[in-house]
Amino acid sequence: MAMAFHFHPLAATRVHLSPLRPGAAAVAGAPSHSSVSLAAHNHHHRRRFAAIVATAAASASVTTEFDFKGYIGERAVAVNRALDAAIPAGEPPATLHDAMRYALLAGGKRVRPALCLAACGVVGGPEAWAMPAAAAVEMVHTMSLVHDDLPCMDDDDLRRGKPTCHVVYGEPIAVLAGDALLSLSFQHMASVGNYPPDVDPEKHPARVVRAIGELARCIGSEGLVAGQVVDLEMTGTSETVPLERLEYIHLHKTAALLEASVVIGAIIGGGTEEQIERLRKYARSIGLLFQVVDDILDVTKSSEELGKTAGKDLASDKTTYPKLLGLDKSREFAEKLLSDATEQLAGFNKEKAAPLLHLANYIAHRQN
Amino acid sequence: MAMAFHFHPLAATRVHLSPLRPGAAAVAGAPSHSSVSLAAHNHHHRRRFAAIVATAAASASVTTEFDFKGYIGERAVAVNRALDAAIPAGEPPATLHDAMRYALLAGGKRVRPALCLAACGVVGGPEAWAMPAAAAVEMVHTMSLVHDDLPCMDDDDLRRGKPTCHVVYGEPIAVLAGDALLSLSFQHMASVGNYPPDVDPEKHPARVVRAIGELARCIGSEGLVAGQVVDLEMTGTSETVPLERLEYIHLHKTAALLEASVVIGAIIGGGTEEQIERLRKYARSIGLLFQVVDDILDVTKSSEELGKTAGKDLASDKTTYPKLLGLDKSREFAEKLLSDATEQLAGFNKEKAAPLLHLANYIAHRQN
Repeated sequence: MAMAFHFHPLAATRVHLSPLRPGAAAVAGAPSHSSVSLAAHNHHHRRRFAAIVATAAASASVTTEFDFKGYIGERAVAVNRALDAAIPAGEPPATLHDAMRYALLAGGKRVRPALCLAACGVVGGPEAWAMPAAAAVEMVHTMSLVHDDLPCMDDDDLRRGKPTCHVVYGEPIAVLAGDALLSLSFQHMASVGNYPPDVDPEKHPARVVRAIGELARCIGSEGLVAGQVVDLEMTGTSETVPLERLEYIHLHKTAALLEASVVIGAIIGGGTEEQIERLRKYARSIGLLFQVVDDILDVTKSSEELGKTAGKDLASDKTTYPKLLGLDKSREFAEKLLSDATEQLAGFNKEKAAPLLHLANYIAHRQN
Repeated sequence: MAMAFHFHPLAATRVHLSPLRPGAAAVAGAPSHSSVSLAAHNHHHRRRFAAIVATAAASASVTTEFDFKGYIGERAVAVNRALDAAIPAGEPPATLHDAMRYALLAGGKRVRPALCLAACGVVGGPEAWAMPAAAAVEMVHTMSLVHDDLPCMDDDDLRRGKPTCHVVYGEPIAVLAGDALLSLSFQHMASVGNYPPDVDPEKHPARVVRAIGELARCIGSEGLVAGQVVDLEMTGTSETVPLERLEYIHLHKTAALLEASVVIGAIIGGGTEEQIERLRKYARSIGLLFQVVDDILDVTKSSEELGKTAGKDLASDKTTYPKLLGLDKSREFAEKLLSDATEQLAGFNKEKAAPLLHLANYIAHRQN
């Protein structure tokens, strides 16, 4: 399957972005392709995408190399260390701790923590300030996976290439492990001992309170849970789900936590209100982007490559972007979202914005 | 069924406590009753309990009347108003909000919020400061009931006299409503707009962070969830559960949240470290007391009186205090715990301590 995007940030350890070509930015609008041939379409896609990346790179002035693979790899190691330390192995109640660790340390990509740390960095805060928040967003993400996979919900047996939590530990423990991960995320963020000693003693507590509020809001009836409720309502219905409703599901089920990850990092890092709002817009675009790419991967990749049951959305008759728009239009939409996201990074320090720029590219072009 | 306690704070609107009789405090130790007859035992119980109440009343100098029924009734009304306002009725996703409201506004006694408000008051903080925390602890309590009642857990059909959440809304929504209530509790506490304008702007954020940490800790693998995990492990086993393990279950499943309710109120109210620790001890005693009384009520009351399935602990072969110690020894243990709790209130302003003193008495003598 040929990808419409020729650029993949993880293809090589070091990524070299091309300098801006004059006039390239002009194609960044939302074009209509309904009548173009597939070949011309793909060609256009490639050209347009190159232009977006070039524009983004120039606006963030990442004309020199940025070691994205190294950046995200180091953050994943640090986050995994924090997560590992947060839940004692073998201590009673051992089954619960084991189940929490099994779900949490299953080797996810740690995209949300990386976004949180990078957002803290882009507003000028040491990334270490956001490490407790980064660990917390991963706990919340894992908790939502554990509960969504339950037999009474999506009934999924495979996650991150391994049997799901309830398959291994049973349904009651899976419910309780999710609850414990959810409360642990707040405990972890509220624990003074988890923060480095150089946080501003006067401003830090109010930032933590605000960040906790953001995290909490993205979980419940304005976030993850709301998305899952509407998703459940849509599953198995014979009527075609309108695009509007599909976006509601994705904005709540996926984008809300990605948004919170970025915004929390910016709050903890001491960002101004204007910076926080720009990063919120960045995060909203990549949030929807994340889900569009997920939907595309579901129809183009095998279960082995994804580490979860592929084609499941189609099999269970779920509405997805490819089903609703077709594969090409879905990819086009993804490009538009990537362009929207990178535009929001224009006003930041170019070197400090590099991680968020590359994270957006990574989310657009990941292969699983 | 004759109760061993002759004093019931809800028997009349206004409760008059007798003044201290000299020498009465001397019986407050932990006596051994193994060989006394039931009649003598009950007589002794009554005398000893009267002494404890007199001691407590004298130490807190509640020689004048305190309108406990009025106190707890007004708090319940205020808490219910806050809970009602926290979850929009009918707004999408309507099913989720309905399920959350159904579980939360089912008319519980609001003992935890009252403890939270009273603890804030006893350290000198206006009770209004603790109202968001009081609402939050009730959300957490309700969430734990909703999840514990699930078919894959305790499989309970009746709660607070009404069909349980999953019976009305189905299992997936019940799981999700619990998750949403849990996250809402933290959102509610972290929301600046929920606090009155007279909180200390410099000290308040750090107090909220600490209080959120306390609340989070009492939910997961050190609290409610841990208790439920061990409770599930014990259910249906043929071996007799030792007292130690029974206490582990109760200390986690019941006492942890009662402790958090009191401690959070004291933190938000600006209590000193010493005050917070004394109130923590008070709360630990009434936490265990609460469960011992629950176990006693389960064998002495009908389902109608309790508003939940009575005798369920016996039917499902669960270990309880009456099963392990017998009914009389269980009541004796309850008295000892009440005495321990009230002792901790000795150093506080007597008038301000009256609500916590009467809440302890209420927990000891409630009829459902």
